[in-house]
Amino acid sequence: MIELYTAPTPNGHKASCTLEALEFDYTSHFVNIGEGEQKKPTFLKINPNGRIPAIIDSDLGDFPLFESGAIMIYLAEKAGRLLPTEAKGRARVIQWLMFQMGGVGPMMGQANVFFRYFPEKLQPAIDRYQKESRRLFEVLDYRLGQNEWLADDYSIADIANWCWVRTYKWSGVSIEGLNNLERWLNVMGGQPGMEKGLEVPFKIENLLNDEKARREFTQNANKMLQK
Amino acid sequence: MIELYTAPTPNGHKASCTLEALEFDYTSHFVNIGEGEQKKPTFLKINPNGRIPAIIDSDLGDFPLFESGAIMIYLAEKAGRLLPTEAKGRARVIQWLMFQMGGVGPMMGQANVFFRYFPEKLQPAIDRYQKESRRLFEVLDYRLGQNEWLADDYSIADIANWCWVRTYKWSGVSIEGLNNLERWLNVMGGQPGMEKGLEVPFKIENLLNDEKARREFTQNANKMLQK
Repeated sequence: MIELYTAPTPNGHKASCTLEALEFDYTSHFVNIGEGEQKKPTFLKINPNGRIPAIIDSDLGDFPLFESGAIMIYLAEKAGRLLPTEAKGRARVIQWLMFQMGGVGPMMGQANVFFRYFPEKLQPAIDRYQKESRRLFEVLDYRLGQNEWLADDYSIADIANWCWVRTYKWSGVSIEGLNNLERWLNVMGGQPGMEKGLEVPFKIENLLNDEKARREFTQNANKMLQK
Repeated sequence: MIELYTAPTPNGHKASCTLEALEFDYTSHFVNIGEGEQKKPTFLKINPNGRIPAIIDSDLGDFPLFESGAIMIYLAEKAGRLLPTEAKGRARVIQWLMFQMGGVGPMMGQANVFFRYFPEKLQPAIDRYQKESRRLFEVLDYRLGQNEWLADDYSIADIANWCWVRTYKWSGVSIEGLNNLERWLNVMGGQPGMEKGLEVPFKIENLLNDEKARREFTQNANKMLQK
């Protein structure tokens, strides 16, 4: 049995969507990042970095693990699915997972910080991260014009990138003209477990369209940034 | 035989130090990022993201691979060293590798951009990334107070984090008071292959202390940012 400590963010969804896609038996626990719960001693014991998501695997003597990308590889290897064992196929999946970990995630994350939360409006910083996110989307679009999926077959690399790219409106980044990316975004939304994974630890479907929900989320995120 | 396409940066050194540590037979090729060579069609064929490092493995029919983190996992698995096969030990190595990929690398990278290269001086952005880098150093210091290495044993996670953290002066981030981190930085510098890995594709030992070399590197990096 796996215990998932998470919040409704792209990194949280990477873990919950992977758990759903691989049909794991798991329990989710909401870590209230708006209240800084991820910085409290009980959570820091699981992840000294104070970030969600983290898991505890009771099958392996309450084994704790953090970093969404590491959790995805761990779960895929445990299930024996969505990550090939053959060297080339496997390396290509990890390559596109790393592209999300070191590129799409941090750049969209920084776009969100300067576009949504930062106390000062620093237009050159907003521009930098939105432009870089768009450039990364173009790389994904190019790859998705060569192949149906990012690696050879459907994999954890698609889940990782999708959990971030689907929130492009929140980051203020356009996907206009990126037809391969748009095709893939639509297909991904219908993949087994994705819809359910996005409802963990609870559904925030209206966040992008609901001004009140957005304001509350932003206020919470602001509090979080000040800690 | 492995062909390495690289430049003397922390991400480049992650690949070269891993190749040296694992005693691979390889040839290195300098990609002149100051001249934008990483954005030219010949290189984009290897990595559509236009970033170093990338490798081509002729043992596997000229198999191309990019993303420094993916290259490290690929090489460790090929050599059967520096990444355990047992589930827990393996997951802990990948966890700390991801900590570098999604945390230390992007945050120090952004600190460098705003502290060194950005056309405007945006002090709040400089502060943000230097402060966040220092916070991540403190997490590493905490972990290195529990154990000699980041994961259970010496691994690619140490190499990945070290290649970035060792450039802390360049990012303008202090390691003062982080005694465990300092102990580890010193030990890491003496690990087999590290010194040689840092000389690939050529030695830039004087960059941090030589004002002329620093100016040239900064100018090149500026050109690079404008592409």
